[in-house]
Amino acid sequence: MEKSPAEIEHPVKAFGWASKDNSGVLSPFVFSRRATGEHDVQFKVLYCGICPSDVEMITNKWGFIKYPVVPGHEIVGVVTEVGIKVEKFKIGDKVGVGHLVESCRKCDLCFKDLENYCLGKRFAHITKYDETGIIRFGGFSDVMVADEHFVIRWPENLPMDIGAPLLCAGITTYSPLKHFGLDKPGIHIGIVGLGGLGHIAVKFAKAFGAKVTVISTSEFKKQEALEKLGADAFLFSANPEQMQAAEWTMDGIIDTVSAVHPMSPLVMLLKNDGKLIMIGAPRKPIELEAKPVILGRKIVAGSVIGGLKETQEMIDFAAKHNILPEVEVIPVDYINNATNRILKADVKYRFVVDIGNTLKSA
Amino acid sequence: MEKSPAEIEHPVKAFGWASKDNSGVLSPFVFSRRATGEHDVQFKVLYCGICPSDVEMITNKWGFIKYPVVPGHEIVGVVTEVGIKVEKFKIGDKVGVGHLVESCRKCDLCFKDLENYCLGKRFAHITKYDETGIIRFGGFSDVMVADEHFVIRWPENLPMDIGAPLLCAGITTYSPLKHFGLDKPGIHIGIVGLGGLGHIAVKFAKAFGAKVTVISTSEFKKQEALEKLGADAFLFSANPEQMQAAEWTMDGIIDTVSAVHPMSPLVMLLKNDGKLIMIGAPRKPIELEAKPVILGRKIVAGSVIGGLKETQEMIDFAAKHNILPEVEVIPVDYINNATNRILKADVKYRFVVDIGNTLKSA
Repeated sequence: MEKSPAEIEHPVKAFGWASKDNSGVLSPFVFSRRATGEHDVQFKVLYCGICPSDVEMITNKWGFIKYPVVPGHEIVGVVTEVGIKVEKFKIGDKVGVGHLVESCRKCDLCFKDLENYCLGKRFAHITKYDETGIIRFGGFSDVMVADEHFVIRWPENLPMDIGAPLLCAGITTYSPLKHFGLDKPGIHIGIVGLGGLGHIAVKFAKAFGAKVTVISTSEFKKQEALEKLGADAFLFSANPEQMQAAEWTMDGIIDTVSAVHPMSPLVMLLKNDGKLIMIGAPRKPIELEAKPVILGRKIVAGSVIGGLKETQEMIDFAAKHNILPEVEVIPVDYINNATNRILKADVKYRFVVDIGNTLKSA
Repeated sequence: MEKSPAEIEHPVKAFGWASKDNSGVLSPFVFSRRATGEHDVQFKVLYCGICPSDVEMITNKWGFIKYPVVPGHEIVGVVTEVGIKVEKFKIGDKVGVGHLVESCRKCDLCFKDLENYCLGKRFAHITKYDETGIIRFGGFSDVMVADEHFVIRWPENLPMDIGAPLLCAGITTYSPLKHFGLDKPGIHIGIVGLGGLGHIAVKFAKAFGAKVTVISTSEFKKQEALEKLGADAFLFSANPEQMQAAEWTMDGIIDTVSAVHPMSPLVMLLKNDGKLIMIGAPRKPIELEAKPVILGRKIVAGSVIGGLKETQEMIDFAAKHNILPEVEVIPVDYINNATNRILKADVKYRFVVDIGNTLKSA
């Protein structure tokens, strides 16, 4: 019998935690990684964040996963080996890897530093693409290897543990704010949903100098939004009077919510030429009234993570402006509790696994 | 009993055709217009187009109309009188008036030449806004008066009859092509729906140097689209294979269709960062899958007519590039046949009423 891609032995021994079926339960897992190629950086993983999309992967929510899955795409560590043609990194450097580990490198999008939209992109932790014969394992492991193009230089003053989720939640919110011109001081930005994405979106929008209003179905989040995260205002979206009073006031809205929710009340909050950017993807089609979109020349758009150049820019900006996610740092053997708590939305606002200190070798 | 706004006598006697109830039937109507104010231009109406939205007005489709209604917002004529402070026009000038006859003139949008989005705008032919005590009558009449700010200079070489629909269908298609950067040579534009708006959108997009694909549910329109209107390609949208083969090929789409129709197949036609602009407003909410919007950073937006500065730019561009709507010029007493034919989509592609030669005075 032919070996599955997961069973093929590569030269570098690796150890991590994997989900072996769609139960979503993770357990210790021995595997291997490729030898450090000419352009590759190998690094010892110290921290790795847990993103809700990791939970979607290990439970096969989208239906395309091949097991085993080693999740983790907010991977931070220290370089242990570099290929002979590597130019940007040396042994001992602090580095990070996010979602992206490959792209075609030759399409228009790649040339425009938009590897995140390249049709040939590959993710660190998604084993959909095994038609290539390569299985990709994410950051819940002791060692990582990636082409230097996909490796981020970690700023000296940025904490490696707390900062890890910037590699996903950070770039996912930073990129649309920048691309859609929502990074201008004095404008009014709405952030829909105060979770892992939303809380960091508030921090970036504030750092850009915007007036920030959090829009949430959870009224109890008001105090936290205003006092802890520094938002300027809070809209309880289940209150039609509050929503109506805020119509035509916002230049842009970042909608982080992936549950199905009414979009037209959000469109109504926008000024003329305002932009509603979806970064959470409801699985069912959204319903949208055309008239308010047309009569206010409004835009409904989407955005997903960011390219490598922009990710480096984001992480440097975060370091400079001291923008850090709110996280709970956990040991490896708490991972299954953490994924269960993510499913119950019981996390403020991200988990980071302390791989370096708590992953016990096989 | 107090007089209705329609019964108030203004100094200028006027005669036209009006709808007196929601039957949609138009008949001769005697009324009056205001005296020419300091900033006003009075002109003899020579031609006026019939837009499907005129039919919506006279049948009160949107529910806010007060009768009588004199429709017509594609109004072309010759100046007969100017107010003492009028600077741009003199007696004998050829002029046009479109939808807009008023705006607040002091909001940000007005200062940005976006009177079409000003919340205080007033339309030539919509009698919704009679809380002002002023009733507005459109262009199916012998005389028109408007503030010079809302009057367009008609280019010498542009036919006044055939050109009239540019004041609505022209600016409605020109404005989104310009605003959303879809006026660049070499890009690929899709035009959904080949009616009054669609056929002129094809002509503008071609004049900008785009590759133009008409997307239609009516396969029989293919020959006309390619041979008569100069489109480069035709997609029969009811054919999934054709639609699929064209995925990820378009930079922008102008969607002119106001009937409810599937949006996600259109989103799929767009390249990364592509823009789908709705200029026809389906009355029911549209359904939109979030995932293709997000994964391609695509934009769904809307646009309605244009500001005065841009309308002048459009009409000058049309004159320079010989862009003319395809029209059927009709006498006044054919108006009710024409509105019935519009309801049956039996028109290529617009009607223009020859007011100057066929309106018989009361």
